Amino acid sequence: MSYTPSALGQVSALPASPAAAVLDFPPNPRPGALYLVRFTCPEFTSLCPVTGQPDFAHLVIDYAPAATIVESKSLKLFLAAFRNHAAFHEDCTVGIGQRLVGEMAPRWLRIGGYWYPRGGIPIDVFWQSGPPPEGLWLPDQGVPGYRGRG
Amino acid sequence: MSYTPSALGQVSALPASPAAAVLDFPPNPRPGALYLVRFTCPEFTSLCPVTGQPDFAHLVIDYAPAATIVESKSLKLFLAAFRNHAAFHEDCTVGIGQRLVGEMAPRWLRIGGYWYPRGGIPIDVFWQSGPPPEGLWLPDQGVPGYRGRG
Amino acid sequence: MSYTPSALGQVSALPASPAAAVLDFPPNPRPGALYLVRFTCPEFTSLCPVTGQPDFAHLVIDYAPAATIVESKSLKLFLAAFRNHAAFHEDCTVGIGQRLVGEMAPRWLRIGGYWYPRGGIPIDVFWQSGPPPEGLWLPDQGVPGYRGRG
Amino acid sequence: MSYTPSALGQVSALPASPAAAVLDFPPNPRPGALYLVRFTCPEFTSLCPVTGQPDFAHLVIDYAPAATIVESKSLKLFLAAFRNHAAFHEDCTVGIGQRLVGEMAPRWLRIGGYWYPRGGIPIDVFWQSGPPPEGLWLPDQGVPGYRGRG
Amino acid sequence: MSYTPSALGQVSALPASPAAAVLDFPPNPRPGALYLVRFTCPEFTSLCPVTGQPDFAHLVIDYAPAATIVESKSLKLFLAAFRNHAAFHEDCTVGIGQRLVGEMAPRWLRIGGYWYPRGGIPIDVFWQSGPPPEGLWLPDQGVPGYRGRG
Amino acid sequence: MSYTPSALGQVSALPASPAAAVLDFPPNPRPGALYLVRFTCPEFTSLCPVTGQPDFAHLVIDYAPAATIVESKSLKLFLAAFRNHAAFHEDCTVGIGQRLVGEMAPRWLRIGGYWYPRGGIPIDVFWQSGPPPEGLWLPDQGVPGYRGRG
Amino acid sequence: MSYTPSALGQVSALPASPAAAVLDFPPNPRPGALYLVRFTCPEFTSLCPVTGQPDFAHLVIDYAPAATIVESKSLKLFLAAFRNHAAFHEDCTVGIGQRLVGEMAPRWLRIGGYWYPRGGIPIDVFWQSGPPPEGLWLPDQGVPGYRGRG
Amino acid sequence: MSYTPSALGQVSALPASPAAAVLDFPPNPRPGALYLVRFTCPEFTSLCPVTGQPDFAHLVIDYAPAATIVESKSLKLFLAAFRNHAAFHEDCTVGIGQRLVGEMAPRWLRIGGYWYPRGGIPIDVFWQSGPPPEGLWLPDQGVPGYRGRG
Amino acid sequence: MSYTPSALGQVSALPASPAAAVLDFPPNPRPGALYLVRFTCPEFTSLCPVTGQPDFAHLVIDYAPAATIVESKSLKLFLAAFRNHAAFHEDCTVGIGQRLVGEMAPRWLRIGGYWYPRGGIPIDVFWQSGPPPEGLWLPDQGVPGYRGRG
Amino acid sequence: MSYTPSALGQVSALPASPAAAVLDFPPNPRPGALYLVRFTCPEFTSLCPVTGQPDFAHLVIDYAPAATIVESKSLKLFLAAFRNHAAFHEDCTVGIGQRLVGEMAPRWLRIGGYWYPRGGIPIDVFWQSGPPPEGLWLPDQGVPGYRGRG
Ligand SMILES: [Ca+2]
Ligand SMILES: [Ca+2]
Ligand SMILES: [Ca+2]
Ligand SMILES: [Ca+2]
Ligand SMILES: [Ca+2]
Ligand SMILES: [Ca+2]
Ligand SMILES: [Ca+2]
Ligand SMILES: [Ca+2]
Ligand SMILES: [Ca+2]
Ligand SMILES: [Ca+2]
Ligand SMILES: [Ca+2]
Ligand SMILES: [Ca+2]
Ligand SMILES: [Ca+2]
Ligand SMILES: [Ca+2]
Ligand SMILES: [Ca+2]
Ligand SMILES: [Ca+2]
Repeated sequence: MSYTPSALGQVSALPASPAAAVLDFPPNPRPGALYLVRFTCPEFTSLCPVTGQPDFAHLVIDYAPAATIVESKSLKLFLAAFRNHAAFHEDCTVGIGQRLVGEMAPRWLRIGGYWYPRGGIPIDVFWQSGPPPEGLWLPDQGVPGYRGRG
Repeated sequence: MSYTPSALGQVSALPASPAAAVLDFPPNPRPGALYLVRFTCPEFTSLCPVTGQPDFAHLVIDYAPAATIVESKSLKLFLAAFRNHAAFHEDCTVGIGQRLVGEMAPRWLRIGGYWYPRGGIPIDVFWQSGPPPEGLWLPDQGVPGYRGRG
Repeated sequence: MSYTPSALGQVSALPASPAAAVLDFPPNPRPGALYLVRFTCPEFTSLCPVTGQPDFAHLVIDYAPAATIVESKSLKLFLAAFRNHAAFHEDCTVGIGQRLVGEMAPRWLRIGGYWYPRGGIPIDVFWQSGPPPEGLWLPDQGVPGYRGRG
Repeated sequence: MSYTPSALGQVSALPASPAAAVLDFPPNPRPGALYLVRFTCPEFTSLCPVTGQPDFAHLVIDYAPAATIVESKSLKLFLAAFRNHAAFHEDCTVGIGQRLVGEMAPRWLRIGGYWYPRGGIPIDVFWQSGPPPEGLWLPDQGVPGYRGRG
Repeated sequence: MSYTPSALGQVSALPASPAAAVLDFPPNPRPGALYLVRFTCPEFTSLCPVTGQPDFAHLVIDYAPAATIVESKSLKLFLAAFRNHAAFHEDCTVGIGQRLVGEMAPRWLRIGGYWYPRGGIPIDVFWQSGPPPEGLWLPDQGVPGYRGRG
Repeated sequence: MSYTPSALGQVSALPASPAAAVLDFPPNPRPGALYLVRFTCPEFTSLCPVTGQPDFAHLVIDYAPAATIVESKSLKLFLAAFRNHAAFHEDCTVGIGQRLVGEMAPRWLRIGGYWYPRGGIPIDVFWQSGPPPEGLWLPDQGVPGYRGRG
Repeated sequence: MSYTPSALGQVSALPASPAAAVLDFPPNPRPGALYLVRFTCPEFTSLCPVTGQPDFAHLVIDYAPAATIVESKSLKLFLAAFRNHAAFHEDCTVGIGQRLVGEMAPRWLRIGGYWYPRGGIPIDVFWQSGPPPEGLWLPDQGVPGYRGRG
Repeated sequence: MSYTPSALGQVSALPASPAAAVLDFPPNPRPGALYLVRFTCPEFTSLCPVTGQPDFAHLVIDYAPAATIVESKSLKLFLAAFRNHAAFHEDCTVGIGQRLVGEMAPRWLRIGGYWYPRGGIPIDVFWQSGPPPEGLWLPDQGVPGYRGRG
Repeated sequence: MSYTPSALGQVSALPASPAAAVLDFPPNPRPGALYLVRFTCPEFTSLCPVTGQPDFAHLVIDYAPAATIVESKSLKLFLAAFRNHAAFHEDCTVGIGQRLVGEMAPRWLRIGGYWYPRGGIPIDVFWQSGPPPEGLWLPDQGVPGYRGRG
Repeated sequence: MSYTPSALGQVSALPASPAAAVLDFPPNPRPGALYLVRFTCPEFTSLCPVTGQPDFAHLVIDYAPAATIVESKSLKLFLAAFRNHAAFHEDCTVGIGQRLVGEMAPRWLRIGGYWYPRGGIPIDVFWQSGPPPEGLWLPDQGVPGYRGRG
């Protein structure tokens, strides 16, 4: 393993903001293969920019690696750094996807943000970096819809 | 059938308020038997007494008939009459149960109110008229809990 | 097998009414054992006594045999005979249970009738012949509640 | 945030009719991105134009924003304004979609209306503004079918 | 509403046969829109042409309206009229679809018939009037497969 | 009905082997229509050719009829005849499909075999006679995956 | 391990009948503890004593060991030996329980037989050797009910 | 309504700590009735006292009111105030229950804390203030267990 | 926190055997309260004592703390230490429960072991240290039964 | 059967490493058919290359055979040999697929690895050997997403 992890195998502090979080990108261990990596992140919280109240979401990130992969503990810390960050649901979700694309330069990436209901109505946000590569196997994310009660 | 239905088999108008609704109580067709009748009412809506906004609930009513049963179309109209009525969740739920007990005088009755979330937190309300009669078969209502997203 | 089946192993006509149906009661093959037999009957239909429209139900019958058991093909024909019979949900459900008890004389019997919604509200009816015998293993019927949509 | 919300962060009254409701359209915070926003609205009710009785539905709205997004609290108030509005299921569902398209001018929009059963038969209505944009990630809505009982 | 309903808003008798049933076709309230209407009909029963025994099915009908829609109460009565009609599963299912197409002349229609098991094996039948129109949003019917027990 | 059934409406013996089983092919009652028939067969068992132990499977067969359909009771007897037949999972599953295609000459056929786990690992086998006909409506079979425990 | 297994760790032939099957009873490895062992056996098949046709069942066996436990491979072979045995559902289910009690002499045992439907109606059979021992932890078997279709 | 809400119907700031949060207790609207109120709170997060990392939980609170009820918006703000509070799972869960009992003095209260997995193992915590009152209807909380994957 | 953790907040090696694993018992943070702690452990594997092949299980442990609680990272390492340990299912499951009781001396403890199928038949093992304390709230573990396929 | 199995029908030892495991490839019993074989492997465990801790996964392998098939007991032993092998999730999953392709030379193969969560975030890995062959029937794997709790 030719990279030095900033977080994995250590005890790590929570970054102060998304901007302060450091993402680690070890070399792709199967660089010749076209494959998909999916992260499921049910522990996401940020703040509402209008009311200051906490928001919660379940996030699912899919990507096809190019030269590197993203190390999951550094990803966890990056996501945890939204804890005191205020932004709209659409902005957070698409922004996480765009930052990962900007730093990792994968072949392709998408993110689904499944937000908890406010006012009885949840919002889901779906973004991808472009059309998926030909030949990539891409199962759907399968997060169940919100159903209210009963 | 020795009673005159006020609603069943006819086209009926929506009552103006819960107080204005008429409940029909035909004779119990199996008066010697101790049995349970369950109504499941997923189409309930009322108003919040503080904000005036609509509230929604899924109601389940269980009762053991004595001399009469409640006719289901008149029950439907009674529940539909909460549409413009403003009251707390606890008040609506327990109040529906108490009115049915007061007019029908069943051996026993309970009501479960499963309210849609507000502020991310749903409220459920459970009331019964007393301990269930000995020997009554009483399955649980089995309404699934609220789970947010993911 | 010391009894002559009226239906099993033969091609049988539909009885004209519940009263015309013949139930077969072969000897209990394990007469010394206290055990439960459950029939699940999702194919039940009768007529509404007020409107003449078809009603549908899912029935579950549980009983503990005494000297005889009820043969399932004759039971099927008995239930199918409600096809042109008009009665309230409460009446049909409790009546089926009472007829089986009257003819078979089991140690104990119960019936759950889970009726399809009318006016947005389904009715379930639960009856048993008395408290269940001590020592009988009696799982709950586990039919899911009605949930509307979503 | 360069727009003045008419509802978010405030206490708001229920609009008297769909026509009286005001929808807010803040600027799209990620205007360069092709993405999907999904609203799930399990708290919808209107009136039957023939009988005057309440109808209930679970709605799911999907759209790809262009210059603006729709603010969710104003959407909630618009939908709540159908409470005293009488129209067929097909008319309500398609009409909500057409109004949103007319005022917001998104790249694309669709609406699924999943109505509670009447007479034992629910109606679902599915409309979209045109073929979805190339490259948009569009998960299916996944609302379960109606199953009656059992 | 420029049509006179034969059934909706009234108390109606059950037609004597499918051929005797009258289907109502009010004008399409959104004639310019390409959209899908789905009816879910879990209350279907007919007779076996060989044995005379009752058969049961869960039907789902999808169509894209042209000039008219089908009124749901008249559809309910048409389907209920199969109660004393004897035909194979394949014949009933495809026949219902063909009659609706013949009388309503929709842009497109399909029907799925999900029949209850006989001899341990259920039959499902799937028919459509032709390839679905381009641009129509057509979710799958999602009826779960039969699983036996366990 | 112009064919003479070998099994339906009669009491039938179990065939001694798959080769000894007779399949009945009545005329297609809707010969002009392109439609799909699905059989779900959760009661399948054969023997392992290496160890002689019983194997179990859940089978789902889909086909588009040409001149004939397969009668379901004769299909049931054919499948039951594998009870004492020894073959690999891949061989049984594809072989059943090939025999049906050979004798019935449908427009198209596929079979999914979902085998119970051995050594902790179940095998599923999926075969079709060729690409499905254009315009055939073909829902997926939707059999859930094996999940071990928990 | 002080016993010689007749089947475990070896390749074994299928016994010719239930009577010919040998059950192994190794010493209870935790003889001082009151605990429950549950076997879930979804691969059970026997023959109908009237028609000779195959029957299928999902069995669940619970017992509290005394001096011995039953070895699972020998249990599997015993159950597989019903493959050519003809008996009623009630007889098979209770009989398996009684044989295990007779040979193993556990503190307590129960068996649930969940049979696949015949004529549209499945039968479940529930038997126990007596009231469960005080202090035994005994979860319910939780096998879902039969639901037909839809 | 004789109390002045501190939060409901207003825009509120997030309290700095659990100790700083103010809970509102309006009068019980049905003081003569023995009933249960359930809050489901899937949006809970706190910090690990050893590592400082965020923890997440799904909480369910059940209580039987005496003189007062707890207002749900003030409850939401109290729970949101754990966002920057560090404590063990056992401590948080039982502590929330004890604070509510101390300030509200209900007839009875219980809390279930269902924590997200750490190290592959989630912890659930269940506490109640004492045995539930006789005659209270108390459904189980029904939160599904953790199952890993597959 | 008055105890020194042997594992939490550190990087730890896998113990060589269950006997070599060290369990940590910090003081109970809510010593006056009678409450339940549940660990769900879906990542368990050991070896078969007869064949040497790997076995897998899903474990659920419930206990009511007395003076101490068990720290979850040390519990994880203890369970992981069964990776190269050979024992029967009954022995492993009851043995884990007995070791925890012996070292922690809780008020009460139970363990459920849900083992993956071998030979088509999974084994579940349920043990508890004695009758649960009066007044303890003890939800059932709710692990679904094994169902084979289909 | 013209091949000599190395494992099936025998008692086999666990290979010391993936490299040491021998995979058996009997001749394809249906060589003219284009079909899919799916293996579901919920019993997979390996070691983390950074921390040395055990990892767990649920694997699903799909392939279309050419001249040979892979024998399932030898596959089981190969997968079990990862028990003491240390590698990243991405590496293990893609590597298993590549080894099977290299030795068996199927027409096509894919593997889905569904890993248990670490740090609250599970990783799924999806790889295929190229675009699936035209005309192959390829159902999706349908493994449910991770949902945290609640
Ligand atoms: Ca809300
Ligand atoms: Ca959640
Ligand atoms: Ca209805
Ligand atoms: Ca139960
Ligand atoms: Ca609903
Ligand atoms: Ca209805
Ligand atoms: Ca899909
Ligand atoms: Ca049904
Ligand atoms: Ca197995
Ligand atoms: Ca699909
Ligand atoms: Ca698992
Ligand atoms: Ca059947
Ligand atoms: Ca974890
Ligand atoms: Ca329960
Ligand atoms: Ca329970
Ligand atoms: Ca099965």
